[in-house]
This record gives sequence, structure tokens and C-alpha cells, in this order.
Amino acid sequence: MIVLPLIERKRDGGRIVPAEWRALAEAYARGDVPDYQMAALLMAVYFRGMDREEIGALTEAMLRSGATLRLEHLPMGRVDKHSTGGVGDKVSLVLAPLVASLGVAVPMMSGRGLGHTGGTLDKLEAIPGFRTDLALDAATRQLERLGCALIGQTAEIAPADRKMYALRDVTGTVEAIPLISASIMSKKLAEGLTGLVLDVKRGSGAFLPELDRGLELARTMIALGADHGCPTVALLTAMDRPLGRACGNALEVEESVLALRGEGPDDLMAVTYALGAEMLVLGGAYATRDDAHAAMRAAIADGRAARAFARIVEAQGGNPGVVEDPAVLPQAPRTAVWTAPRDGVVQRVEPRAVGKGIIALGGGRTKVDDRVDPAVGFVITARPGAAVRAGEPLATIHARDDAGLAAGRAALDAAVRIGDALDEAPLPLVSHRVTAAGVETLAG
Amino acid sequence: MIVLPLIERKRDGGRIVPAEWRALAEAYARGDVPDYQMAALLMAVYFRGMDREEIGALTEAMLRSGATLRLEHLPMGRVDKHSTGGVGDKVSLVLAPLVASLGVAVPMMSGRGLGHTGGTLDKLEAIPGFRTDLALDAATRQLERLGCALIGQTAEIAPADRKMYALRDVTGTVEAIPLISASIMSKKLAEGLTGLVLDVKRGSGAFLPELDRGLELARTMIALGADHGCPTVALLTAMDRPLGRACGNALEVEESVLALRGEGPDDLMAVTYALGAEMLVLGGAYATRDDAHAAMRAAIADGRAARAFARIVEAQGGNPGVVEDPAVLPQAPRTAVWTAPRDGVVQRVEPRAVGKGIIALGGGRTKVDDRVDPAVGFVITARPGAAVRAGEPLATIHARDDAGLAAGRAALDAAVRIGDALDEAPLPLVSHRVTAAGVETLAG
Repeated sequence: MIVLPLIERKRDGGRIVPAEWRALAEAYARGDVPDYQMAALLMAVYFRGMDREEIGALTEAMLRSGATLRLEHLPMGRVDKHSTGGVGDKVSLVLAPLVASLGVAVPMMSGRGLGHTGGTLDKLEAIPGFRTDLALDAATRQLERLGCALIGQTAEIAPADRKMYALRDVTGTVEAIPLISASIMSKKLAEGLTGLVLDVKRGSGAFLPELDRGLELARTMIALGADHGCPTVALLTAMDRPLGRACGNALEVEESVLALRGEGPDDLMAVTYALGAEMLVLGGAYATRDDAHAAMRAAIADGRAARAFARIVEAQGGNPGVVEDPAVLPQAPRTAVWTAPRDGVVQRVEPRAVGKGIIALGGGRTKVDDRVDPAVGFVITARPGAAVRAGEPLATIHARDDAGLAAGRAALDAAVRIGDALDEAPLPLVSHRVTAAGVETLAG
Repeated sequence: MIVLPLIERKRDGGRIVPAEWRALAEAYARGDVPDYQMAALLMAVYFRGMDREEIGALTEAMLRSGATLRLEHLPMGRVDKHSTGGVGDKVSLVLAPLVASLGVAVPMMSGRGLGHTGGTLDKLEAIPGFRTDLALDAATRQLERLGCALIGQTAEIAPADRKMYALRDVTGTVEAIPLISASIMSKKLAEGLTGLVLDVKRGSGAFLPELDRGLELARTMIALGADHGCPTVALLTAMDRPLGRACGNALEVEESVLALRGEGPDDLMAVTYALGAEMLVLGGAYATRDDAHAAMRAAIADGRAARAFARIVEAQGGNPGVVEDPAVLPQAPRTAVWTAPRDGVVQRVEPRAVGKGIIALGGGRTKVDDRVDPAVGFVITARPGAAVRAGEPLATIHARDDAGLAAGRAALDAAVRIGDALDEAPLPLVSHRVTAAGVETLAG
């Protein structure tokens, strides 16, 4: 394949037509396009962008480079949720069993943590025995039986995307909205969905901190979903502080179990319910989001959601006892309390600093092949706006050893800022709702 | 070497500091930076540019990656000319012996033709026996003896540039002025010059057709020269039509020999004299360009320039008889005359179409490893603005066979446009003179 004219055309502001994108993605997946030409093209895309048709063609080509889940025979709607990632974001663990327990299938394909953000697979694997490496046929059988499977991107799914993402990761071309959108949607469309809900984080801890970039990503992915017969809704949610209290893999599973039992922190529940209502309406189980909200509260109150989670954990080889007794999770040998250094008001709990703290404790990754320690992390009760007294406990550090405790303390010193008064208002938890019809502002 | 942060910084509009450019170029030359990361960085440079200090550091690093000519012991100034390339541009063949015959050493390192533009090495090698692959020590001895050597970029010179240029060539990152400038100057500075003259072509057949881009290239290279103790002057010259009449390797050698004997076409002589005057003044042989002009005319009139060429040809293994009898050059077996298809005025002789015609005849390259047929080409007497009659001979095609003649005819049909009147004025032959002091407009 002759790639140079395509690079030059994109560089000069022209467009690469759909048939060319398809040929390019196929040739790249086959190894017939060298990485250096793809890297130059991706950087040109970073500067020049891609139009809706171009993004669609690339998405389609990456989708078709691999296998897909065939779920048309399921009687119910099939809806997944994708988050752009954050700190303390354990929503998937609560949401998937909750929605599945209400009659919408959730074929959920998640990723691992990297940098300051955590990943659902790492959290699930903190549960002793839990396996996320299900093959597509095993996942299909589990979906038929339980309405939910929580898996990783297998080698069968969108191999062209996997190869291209690995290249983007080392060539400074990750943060391009057309490429992000095509990458995410090529995998989501491979799940055979009838609907998709996006949790687009905004704020300092988000992948795209700025609201306008978050909205652009949402609109791009919603258009892609619409063009491929997968109705998509996005919510913009706050990532200017961690979500919930627990940050760290096993600690987040524990908080998720508490949430499924009705004891979750308010912010986690609010985001989970907002996303779940969209999923349940998209999946055809409820006519209105209000109905869906009521149903979710009931499924948590009467134990259906928690039981659904236990069944999924068991089906995937994990210890279902985690739902009754989270103490089966790995426990960090050392803990220490972090206290307020002064009287005042909590101004910030900086997610990136917390995420880096988890890496310092050994619970996160700076490289894709780093191993993670599931037990370590933080439980942070400090909330922006809260008045605190010097010496008041605001967090617990869970560490492997003394060095970890020291690293955790340093991370919290950097992450938690206490001042005389709140200097900027925290972002609203759920601020915007984006659909194919447009953007709805829910909270300033 | 960790390259990703440098890619991201350049992508985001920041600068890579000189020490980083040096480390990067060295690591790349060693093979410690993968091509895909360098490709992404080069594309980011294409969009974001480089400042004077960055370009200087890259130039210096590429220069230092290899050997240099050590010519400080020569008693005279050492000046080279670099052209950005064109069609029919045989100036080097006339200029080098002419300037050398007047007491300024010319260590000239040239390139090969690619695409529609020809290359000095291919032209010289049309002379039976002529070798351009002199090692640096052989070139030095020849410079000591004859004041001139006409060589190619050896493997010893700027290997980092050679590797980076090969990558740029396949990644759409050739046309970036900072990279062009660093590439050219890293090789020119390796020649141990006391001065450099640039022939920056403008017009439809030029590498950078637009005047403003040509001026920007000139200014960038002049600044680089100044920063490295090599005073540099640039002339902007016309490449909206071929230079001289002959286009094709052996045909251009023949025209060069005629020029050295005082029978060259006016346009070729004007450009040669303009560039030569700059070289002779920069080299310290003459105080003014007028003095240098007079000296050059004398050296051509009394045979010194032609004899200098014969000695260089002989020293480099070629048949010096070419100066007395150009018929020693390879001759194309078939020739045909191309005539004016109608009465009218010659509006255009399009250099790119002529250059593509030479490729069609087998005398040019589309890939670097193509072999060239030295004998084929065109002698085009048609000049923009000339009134012509239908059937009047305007060019001769020199071809290997009938297919070549047909291809040559088609090329001239496309290249030579005859209309009722001149629709746009041809560019002035030498329009601007650029020095460290600024830009001087010589002709509108």
C-alpha cells in the first residue's frame, strides 16, 4: 500500500476517503504499513483532525479487523457503559450487576489502569480467583445465563485498534479526539450492543480536563454510535476529586460491595444511578429515567443487585463470598491514619496526586507490564468544602510496608489542600447530558 | 533515551532545547530512537516549527555525527554553491570550474536527481569514466591540487542526516523549512567552507514554489551559516521554466561545456555569473561583484574555465576530451523534432512536465535506486514570450526508442503551452538577494 500520498494529503488539510481508511487499517493490521508511516499520519491527524465519515470508516475497519460478540439472539437489550477514566471510579462494578439484575444485558469489556487512572480489570482481579480473560464464546454463554460478563479486550477483538493504540501510546498521538473515539467505539461496537452510555469525566483528574474537549469527545462518539446503529448517550461527570472514598483495587471492590448492599457513598451512588437510568431506558427495560431510578433503588434495597454480582463473581472463578464479607479481599499489612494538618476547609482533593500515590504504593502502573499490588491504596473521607479541625482523621493509608506508608503520607500531603475557605466550587457531579439531539445542561 | 516527552512538548508548541536536540540526533544515529518516534516528532516539527537555536543544535549534531573536510591549510577561500533544485539546472558544472579557475576553492558536494528535478552527480556521471564517489582524503588532495572537487555525500558525512532524510522522504516531512535547512547546512558545514552561496529556486518547478517560502528558507539557512562562522548569501532565481535549453544528463553536460567555451545560453550564463560573483567575493578573490563578473567573462573568453573543467574531469577518471568534443558523451539512438502546433506566443514551458518527461524517457528517477539513462532528454528552444509559427521546430527529443519518442512528444505537448499572447510574465531570472543584512529586491 502506498501511504505517503495519504500522509501528505492529511498533513495539508485534505481528507482520506473511507475506502482509503479501510485499506490503510487493514494493511496496518497485516503489517504491510510500517509503524513510522503510521506514526507520521497519526501526528498529522492530531493537527488536522478527521471528519465524521473518516472517523466512521476507521472505526469500522478496526472493528472488522477482529471478531465480535454475536448477541442478537438474546431477548433483552444489550447496553454497556464506557468511562474515560478517573481516580476512585469503581462505577462499573456496581452498575453492571445492578443493570443486569433489572433485565438489560451488560456485555462489559474493560481495561487496565495506567498512569494515575485505575482500571476495572485490575479491580475485579483483586477478588481472589476472579478471571477477566474469558474467550468470546465463554462470555456469550455467561451473558445468556446471567445477563452480564465483565471481560478484557481479548486478542480476538479489534486487533488493528490494539496495534494502533500501542503505537499512539509511544508517539504522542493518544490525545486526539478522532482517534480516541474510533478506538473506543471500535471495541464497543464489537460487543454487539443495542445502546451505549458514556461517562465522560471532566476536571483536573480527567483524561480531557476541559469541558469543551469532553463535550467534543461525547458528540464525536455519539455520532459514531448513531452511524453504526448503536444509540449512545453521554453524561459529563466530575473528576476534580476522587469518586467515592476508596482508591486502590481491593479497597474499591469493598466499597462497590457496600454500594450494592445500599451502603455506598452518595457521590458514587448518584453517578451510578444517573448512568444506570440511561442504560435501562436505552435497553428498553424502563420507559423513563425516573422509573429506572426507582427500580435501581429497589434492586439494591432487596438484594437483587448484590446477588447478581455474587453470581457473576462465581461464574468468573472468583470467591462470591466477597459480597457477604469483603474481608476475603487481600488486606494491606500496614495502615495509618492521615490527619488534617490545620483547622480550615478542604479546598481540593487532587485526583492526579491520589493516583500517583497509588502508583507509589505499588497499586498502579506507569508501564503496561507493571504488576499491581491489589491491597494498597487510600480511603479518603475528606471532601471539598468540608470544615475540618487540625488532627481530625481525613484518610487511611493502606500500604505494604513503612516505605509505602511514607509514600502514601507524602501523596496525601500533596493531594489534600486545606485553606481558610473554599476557593473554587467543586464541579457538579453530573453536569451535562449529551444525546444525538444535543447537549442538555443539568447543573452549572 | 526517553523521547515521548519531547514529542509531546513539540506537539504542544514548546521547544526542545539544544542539549536535547543533540542527544536526540546522536541517539537516533546510533539506532537508540525508533523510527516511529522520530517520524511522529518530525511531523510535529512540520506543524510547530523550530526556532533558530533549535535548528542550529540539530544542524550541529548531524554535522558532528560524521567526518568533515579539513581544508584550513588551503591558502584561498573555500566556497560552495547549493541549489534547491530544478529542471535544466546545470549551473554547478559551469560554476565550479569557473570559480576555481579564479582562485577560490570549490569543495562541491552534490546530490542525485529525484522526481522532476535533476542532480549534479547524474550529470557528471554522463561523462564516460567520471567518478563522484571520492573518499574525503582523495577529495582533499584534489582540492589542494586543482582547487575543486565534485563529489557526492559520502557515508562519512553527516550519517545522522542521511538516516533522518531517508525517514522524512517516506513520512511526508520533507517540506519543513527547519528540517530542510538543517539537512542542507549539516552537509555544507562539513565541507569546511569559508562561505556559501544558495540558489533558491522559485516558481512552479521549484521545490518551494512560493516566493515567501523561498525567502524563509534563505533567511533560515543564512542565519544558520552566520551562527556557524560560514557567511552565506542567497539568490532567488527563476524556475518557472527550465534553465538553459538542455534537459537530460548528457545533453546538460554538453550545454555546460558550450557555456564554459563562451557559447552558453543567456539565461544559464546570467544565473551562473550572478552566483559566481557572490562566490568570488565571499572567497576573497575580488572586492566587488562587478570585478568578479569581469574576471569570469575573461576566464571563459581565454579558456581558463574550460581547461579547469578538463583537469577536474581527468582527475576524477572522466574523459577530458569532452571539453573539446562533446560527442564523446553518450548519444541517444533516436531523435525527433517537436514543432509548434499553432501560431501564437509561447506562454509556458512547464518545468515539472519537462522533468516528468525525462523520467518517462528513462533519464530520471521516481525511486532513489532507479538507474538513469544518461543519453535521453530534451533540447528546448521555446522560450516564454516568443512568437512562433505553426510547424516551427521548438524542441528536439532524444530517446532510446520509438516508445521514448512518443513519451517525449506527449511530455512536450503537456509542457509547452502556446496561446494568443503571454498571459503571465515570466519570473525575473534573479529576483532577490538575501544576506544576513536583509533582503534586496533586484527585479520585480
